Amino acid sequence: MTVRAAAASGARSVVISPGAAVAGKATGDEETRVTDLAHMRRAIELAARGRGTTSPNPVVGCVVLDASGRVAGEGFHAHAGGPHAEVVALRAAGERARGGTAYVTLEPCDHTGRTGPCSAALLAAGVARVVVAVRDPNPEAAGGAERLRRHGVTVETGVLTAEAERGNAEWLTSVRLGRPHVTWKYAATMDGRSAAADGTSQWITSPEARADVHRLRAEADAVVAGIGTVLADDPLLTARPAGGPPARQPLRVVVDSAARTPAGARVLDDGAPTLVAVAADADPVAVRAVAGRAEVVRLPRREPYGLDLAELLAELRRREVVGVLLEGGPTLAGSFLREGLVDRVVGYLAPALLGAGAAALGPAGVATIAGTHRLEFEDVTPTGPDLRLTARPIPLRGDADVHRNR
Amino acid sequence: MTVRAAAASGARSVVISPGAAVAGKATGDEETRVTDLAHMRRAIELAARGRGTTSPNPVVGCVVLDASGRVAGEGFHAHAGGPHAEVVALRAAGERARGGTAYVTLEPCDHTGRTGPCSAALLAAGVARVVVAVRDPNPEAAGGAERLRRHGVTVETGVLTAEAERGNAEWLTSVRLGRPHVTWKYAATMDGRSAAADGTSQWITSPEARADVHRLRAEADAVVAGIGTVLADDPLLTARPAGGPPARQPLRVVVDSAARTPAGARVLDDGAPTLVAVAADADPVAVRAVAGRAEVVRLPRREPYGLDLAELLAELRRREVVGVLLEGGPTLAGSFLREGLVDRVVGYLAPALLGAGAAALGPAGVATIAGTHRLEFEDVTPTGPDLRLTARPIPLRGDADVHRNR
Repeated sequence: MTVRAAAASGARSVVISPGAAVAGKATGDEETRVTDLAHMRRAIELAARGRGTTSPNPVVGCVVLDASGRVAGEGFHAHAGGPHAEVVALRAAGERARGGTAYVTLEPCDHTGRTGPCSAALLAAGVARVVVAVRDPNPEAAGGAERLRRHGVTVETGVLTAEAERGNAEWLTSVRLGRPHVTWKYAATMDGRSAAADGTSQWITSPEARADVHRLRAEADAVVAGIGTVLADDPLLTARPAGGPPARQPLRVVVDSAARTPAGARVLDDGAPTLVAVAADADPVAVRAVAGRAEVVRLPRREPYGLDLAELLAELRRREVVGVLLEGGPTLAGSFLREGLVDRVVGYLAPALLGAGAAALGPAGVATIAGTHRLEFEDVTPTGPDLRLTARPIPLRGDADVHRNR
Repeated sequence: MTVRAAAASGARSVVISPGAAVAGKATGDEETRVTDLAHMRRAIELAARGRGTTSPNPVVGCVVLDASGRVAGEGFHAHAGGPHAEVVALRAAGERARGGTAYVTLEPCDHTGRTGPCSAALLAAGVARVVVAVRDPNPEAAGGAERLRRHGVTVETGVLTAEAERGNAEWLTSVRLGRPHVTWKYAATMDGRSAAADGTSQWITSPEARADVHRLRAEADAVVAGIGTVLADDPLLTARPAGGPPARQPLRVVVDSAARTPAGARVLDDGAPTLVAVAADADPVAVRAVAGRAEVVRLPRREPYGLDLAELLAELRRREVVGVLLEGGPTLAGSFLREGLVDRVVGYLAPALLGAGAAALGPAGVATIAGTHRLEFEDVTPTGPDLRLTARPIPLRGDADVHRNR
């Protein structure tokens, strides 16, 4: 678990990443190990700069050292179609890369896509050693480490793997599970309520927490809400982060089995593209009314929620959606959870108590304590007066092998 | 807010107290200030060793330096009737205290109780400077600072006040408000539930969190539960901390307006004294049945909970109870909160989701969002896989003056 003090004031900007120093495998002597960790951490930082703009590609960062161990170049993958992180860093390093070391957060690709294979670029630059955080699970692109080794380059893997995986969770999930990664976001009081007894809910959390949600939206490819939320709150569902409009707005998705989205709903404005998912057997007149204002997709009906959510994710994947932000409401979130379709939970917990009112989460298929959806906390960050809690479902044992030990 | 990384492994034992370095008033040059903060922090640590055994007295810690600034003696108040912290530290220092500095977490007392006034002891020892974290709000004992100043001792107050107040919250509340300090403890999932749909609840939180609750019980003078909890869970309500039996067991209190506590309830065993609070108009036969097995107190009836909770606290104060641990259930906790009788909330949050089942908190008199009980997070500490959240109600402005700026 990463626990951070609030970044609001200078005195509170401390960050602890307790697991970090022990996450990598030892790769030679202690000094090399410490150096490797430091450069890989920097590469992970660089990778994070691509969040929200590289989709459907992964985020990748790269640091290149010269033969004497000095930093010669840095790079990250900034947007799909743009140069890969390794290419950017190698360009910056130029001749100094010869005999040096490259730190890459993801195994260098070995295929010619919109750009040439990075494995070949590293070979051409004369890099002697390549350190990799995460192996590429994509069979099309993998093989970079193998090609480098065949040509005499020392390749080490498994350095800061967990940390790098976390930064690439969306893309890794989409490759491994063949569906978009789903982050369920909620805001609640300490007693788990998202509204008071009379239905009022503005605002339970702070402006800082709400600004953080806009950051999450800007990083997502799609923002999903249920028709209940649309009818109750009439949200825009656009990303309006503090730093100004994002490079592109995420696709807004309304899960609306009976096609009840009102013609005047703000989610249908021209601020971002919108997809309304309706049941295959929804009333054609209602569907036509919605179809005049947004794209409509028909999905198989499935109870209890009314739509087959796995089919919804398959549809989004066909649209190159890698990361989904699920913004509720409680009924829709419960259904995603019941279907095992939630990969990360981000909760904004307000230091407040209500004692009555709507719960943040509705029925999720749990009848008894043994069936509880178990997660693990990954990060706790004070956000204004609130806490942002990040948690992930505990992977099944078989899953763990796939996710952790490659 | 203090945010801690888990203390489970060596790598995670970091503690951040971000507010600490800025909490004290500057008292001279920067070096003195840093020295003062370090010694006062140590005095606060010493004070905490008395938690659970000094009641109804405050916890107090003291560090005495010799004239050259070396630590000459340390002490804390260990139990009511025993020597005060200053006396213990001065004894350890002996002649080395002359011309030195004493750091005390609470203003030295100026009255002769079971021991002589500490102000006099400090004067007799020849201490030249006394640094105080918290002024004594007790009119009977206060005046120590004044007496010291009259005799030419430099007295400085306000060093690490907030931190020292936190360590003495129970006692300070009992003096300032004339009633015991109430800590409401709950355990819940991220969605605020304390039981699954079928009522099962063992266990939502981890063994580490449950062990921590035993520590809280051992530090309390009384543990309060509602009859609903007694009927549903048949708890022992004794303190069984990891280090072995505590010096004394807290008083177990059952809030039971209709005198329904079963004869065989475990809370009536001889493991600790028990008080059953019934309504003044409760059925005499039922009351007699309970009275044969525990002490019974009759309190005025008051809806919605059935008993006047302020009267309950007054009754506990008459029994020298300073710190109360309120363990629920949700209905009783809601009533305490509605009456403004909760001073601290300690929540154990499990990384789990239920989506159905009993909420951790029942009706608390809030109808709309503007009426939300607002708190502030004071501490977040990973406890096993769970998080322990500590929060306090945000004091009213007038209150804040009393609590913060003295």
